[in-house]
Amino acid sequence: MSEDSTQPIDDIPAYMRALGEAARAAGRHLAATDSGPRNQALRLIAESIRDAAPALAEANQRDLDAGKAAGLDAALLDRLALTEARIEAMAEGLEQIAALPDPVGAVTDLDPMPSGIRVGRMRVPLGVVGIIYESRPNVTADAAGLCLKSGNACLLRGGSEALHSNQAIAECIRGGLEAAGLPSTAVQVVGTTDRAAVGELITLDDYVDVLVPRGGKGLIERIMRDATVPMIKHLDGICHCYIDANADADMAEQVVVNAKTQRYGTCNTLETLLISAAMAPEMLPRLKARFDAHGVELRGCERSRSLVDGLTAATEADWDTEYLAAILSIRVVDDLDEAIRHIARHSSGHTDAIVTNDYAHAQRFLREVDSSSVMVNASTRFADGFEYGLGAEIGISTDKLHARGPVGLEGLTTQKYIVLGEGHVRE
Amino acid sequence: MSEDSTQPIDDIPAYMRALGEAARAAGRHLAATDSGPRNQALRLIAESIRDAAPALAEANQRDLDAGKAAGLDAALLDRLALTEARIEAMAEGLEQIAALPDPVGAVTDLDPMPSGIRVGRMRVPLGVVGIIYESRPNVTADAAGLCLKSGNACLLRGGSEALHSNQAIAECIRGGLEAAGLPSTAVQVVGTTDRAAVGELITLDDYVDVLVPRGGKGLIERIMRDATVPMIKHLDGICHCYIDANADADMAEQVVVNAKTQRYGTCNTLETLLISAAMAPEMLPRLKARFDAHGVELRGCERSRSLVDGLTAATEADWDTEYLAAILSIRVVDDLDEAIRHIARHSSGHTDAIVTNDYAHAQRFLREVDSSSVMVNASTRFADGFEYGLGAEIGISTDKLHARGPVGLEGLTTQKYIVLGEGHVRE
Repeated sequence: MSEDSTQPIDDIPAYMRALGEAARAAGRHLAATDSGPRNQALRLIAESIRDAAPALAEANQRDLDAGKAAGLDAALLDRLALTEARIEAMAEGLEQIAALPDPVGAVTDLDPMPSGIRVGRMRVPLGVVGIIYESRPNVTADAAGLCLKSGNACLLRGGSEALHSNQAIAECIRGGLEAAGLPSTAVQVVGTTDRAAVGELITLDDYVDVLVPRGGKGLIERIMRDATVPMIKHLDGICHCYIDANADADMAEQVVVNAKTQRYGTCNTLETLLISAAMAPEMLPRLKARFDAHGVELRGCERSRSLVDGLTAATEADWDTEYLAAILSIRVVDDLDEAIRHIARHSSGHTDAIVTNDYAHAQRFLREVDSSSVMVNASTRFADGFEYGLGAEIGISTDKLHARGPVGLEGLTTQKYIVLGEGHVRE
Repeated sequence: MSEDSTQPIDDIPAYMRALGEAARAAGRHLAATDSGPRNQALRLIAESIRDAAPALAEANQRDLDAGKAAGLDAALLDRLALTEARIEAMAEGLEQIAALPDPVGAVTDLDPMPSGIRVGRMRVPLGVVGIIYESRPNVTADAAGLCLKSGNACLLRGGSEALHSNQAIAECIRGGLEAAGLPSTAVQVVGTTDRAAVGELITLDDYVDVLVPRGGKGLIERIMRDATVPMIKHLDGICHCYIDANADADMAEQVVVNAKTQRYGTCNTLETLLISAAMAPEMLPRLKARFDAHGVELRGCERSRSLVDGLTAATEADWDTEYLAAILSIRVVDDLDEAIRHIARHSSGHTDAIVTNDYAHAQRFLREVDSSSVMVNASTRFADGFEYGLGAEIGISTDKLHARGPVGLEGLTTQKYIVLGEGHVRE
């Protein structure tokens, strides 16, 4: 990529193929390295980011000025801003990634077979990861760090509003890679805001092994429509909590209130409360009082509205809506079976929880609810790579193949079979 | 599915959606069962196939007669034929699958986190598997058995030439499922030869979790073009063997001859031999003599042709061709680096092997060759689910995501996160 990469590019497909080809070569190089140089690069990039803090702030100011001029809203401008604390957090994040165990190279189950060969599986990088994201420039450092740690080259396509910030961070990354003796093409930031570049990136099957889109539902849907490269993604987080017939009422209240109110805008936030008919008369007034205090609007089914005043009537659409806001839909169900059926029909497969004291019900819920995270007596807000001990998170997947749930470094790797023989042939 | 399912179906999309909906419901039922009824069903289906041998032979004869009338070639008619031995092999295969350990239900790494929650992963069925295959009716029993064992419902679409055979096998499967108390819709054979049914099946994203196409490259390419459901697949098997500078010549000869000649038409058959310049003068005449005895045509690079007479000149296209025939391309390379570069460029990522006595070279080859199976001193023909101890094989994947290499029961499952708390909330 040329230094002058914010200039218009005439032939976007050729430009993207060139990035892809360089990434593929860099990925092959990384796959052959030990963790030493990769970790050294991560620490050197962190250092370089700290050193470049004034330059990063300056580049970021250009983006902020342009954003203000273009009329971006306050929330977007806040996400775009690289404060001193955020710059330090990027550097610290990279150092934390460097300190994690190396996810590649391990060989498992090298077992002898009846033929005499030994067969095992070796964990290896995927190759090249394409990351498509919006506004927040710190994703540039985070995503690059996770890919580098897992031995993958990456192509980063940030939001056009963050171009100068991302380019300045990319400059730090390049410096760190080179100082560690790794190819600077191991991390490439797409140097054009032309949207055609995204269209190319998501169809670069020869050069990109997986896409990780990070952003709102609109972004993911656009990419899904046209991508031919496989993706690690989730669309919705329509998360449920079911309060079972013999749940502890205090525990249920505590879990449900936390799952809904701890943060409203996250994908693991509770959106629909299912409540056993046996518990509803006791629980609903208590919950109504708690949610009123939080200013949460409650939308209830007929049965729930007959038990407590002040609930808006839920429509069918409510069961399929991720509010990402201070709104909760509530449905009274007869029993565990009806709860499981509701979840099977309306869950987005992200995270669903039960609050219960019934052992058999807990086991059935764990087994039968087909979501990426299934919880007993815990807040859905725990569905997160850091809370799960992954040390890092590149995204969350609600797909069933490859990676499911919070995706850490392991999701950026694959396992190949290795076979060791001593001249063995097949009879 | 109606009994009279070979009748023309007016509304193929509606018909396929109905099959999909029934499969989804059956899959949910299976996911909630223990291994007991699933294994019992497998054994009862085996019994039912043995009992129905005369009826199966009769149905198969209808297909064979129609095939002959339609002018199918001898190889295709052979694959289509259900001999007594093949019927018994189907039954035995199902009994073997029943005897394998249950691939679902295991919970791994249920570890406590700093927050107090315990987080683990539970292995669960994918849900619904779509299998698309050609001619060989025994795939109907094999594939149904693997899906059932792994707790998945399946939709089977066999070749139109095998319709009556497949329907007769499906009848046995239905009987076994019902006798074991499982829904007969757990295994459904698509009851129409209309090709539009395939187009529907591969885009039934709401009801089908993964496709496993089993057949020639043409079939896979057609499905790849239009499928929106993810696939477990491989396209080509352009497998390499590299004879390193200090290989044992006898071992090299033995491995290479086996890899090429043990069977010509399989995807793990050797197609390109790379040979170190240091070994070529000694090895090439020996190999020429052995391959002549097998009637294998050798196509060589310039350097190899200068070392031994009687090699056809290889063209660039040869390095990218899966012959599936008694033809081998040969290229002399300077060293390991050139061999790895050739493989990176021309391998289909299926299986590549090195014959070497150099420890460091063996390690580099294992690490740097990015294929689903990488071998040292063993014939590529070993790349196979049974040889790898998987107990069964649903297919081979050259993709990197989800399943890579021979795919057994584990590839038909996924892992979801489970979280156990005692009222834990996120701070």
